[in-house]
Amino acid sequence: MKYLLIPLSLLLFVACSEKPSSQEDIVQNTEQDLEAIKTQVTRFSALVMEGDFDGVGEMYSSEASIFPTNSDIIKGREEITAYWNAPGGGDISYHKVTPIEIKVWEDEAYDYGYYEGKSLDSLGTEIPWKGKYVIVWKKENDEWKIYLDIWNRIVE
Amino acid sequence: MKYLLIPLSLLLFVACSEKPSSQEDIVQNTEQDLEAIKTQVTRFSALVMEGDFDGVGEMYSSEASIFPTNSDIIKGREEITAYWNAPGGGDISYHKVTPIEIKVWEDEAYDYGYYEGKSLDSLGTEIPWKGKYVIVWKKENDEWKIYLDIWNRIVE
Repeated sequence: MKYLLIPLSLLLFVACSEKPSSQEDIVQNTEQDLEAIKTQVTRFSALVMEGDFDGVGEMYSSEASIFPTNSDIIKGREEITAYWNAPGGGDISYHKVTPIEIKVWEDEAYDYGYYEGKSLDSLGTEIPWKGKYVIVWKKENDEWKIYLDIWNRIVE
Repeated sequence: MKYLLIPLSLLLFVACSEKPSSQEDIVQNTEQDLEAIKTQVTRFSALVMEGDFDGVGEMYSSEASIFPTNSDIIKGREEITAYWNAPGGGDISYHKVTPIEIKVWEDEAYDYGYYEGKSLDSLGTEIPWKGKYVIVWKKENDEWKIYLDIWNRIVE
């Protein structure tokens, strides 16, 4: 019977070492999530430049909110897609987002930084603009979606 | 020796039941954190109405960033305090923030909603305004501080 002592101690050690996720797993996941979010950031600009605003709308969570300057909060993917499809600023010939910090907490993240772009006016002249933003991302079905999206311009 | 088996099994059970924080603790903490953040939201408006902009500056994390419309990002508590102290909009006679959602992740949280206020112009006439915001909070030394603060107006 005394030979049971070692296996039991070993079991105690093994059982208690097994955590739901190790620090290493978390770091690994966070790095993968950061890369996934950066890919989404680049994809967003690509879709805007292609004029694929249905595609832009798909990048938002179904319960997302956007906060356009002077407008009320626009909530829901359908309403957000309609906002992006509305005629207004003309074709966007250039769009780039430069995150300053992205911080992941499991299935959510915040992200802030700068955006810049160029619109074509009716004469085909490029009008440059830039601003800053804060985004809250949510991971849904293993894909990072925009949940909150607020921005405003920088005027020089 | 065989009497050791029960204590060891018990030890195994107890050791593995002991988690760093139970679900109940987390819910309890989150509720306390939510209340603490709501208190800070109310305090912010009170300080603005008192004209205590050094006090407003103290509500930000030392590494905070704010995103005023048309301006570049302003980073650091000292620079943010200077922004709030700068002459400009006149006395603010009324200020209220109405959060729509506050979500806490341990020592960070996001918060979004509406703000509204009234400024006094040089003739003492009240000029009302309102807008929407997204804030990221950080808990530092057990106090919730504003880390990211971005807003823009709603024009009717």
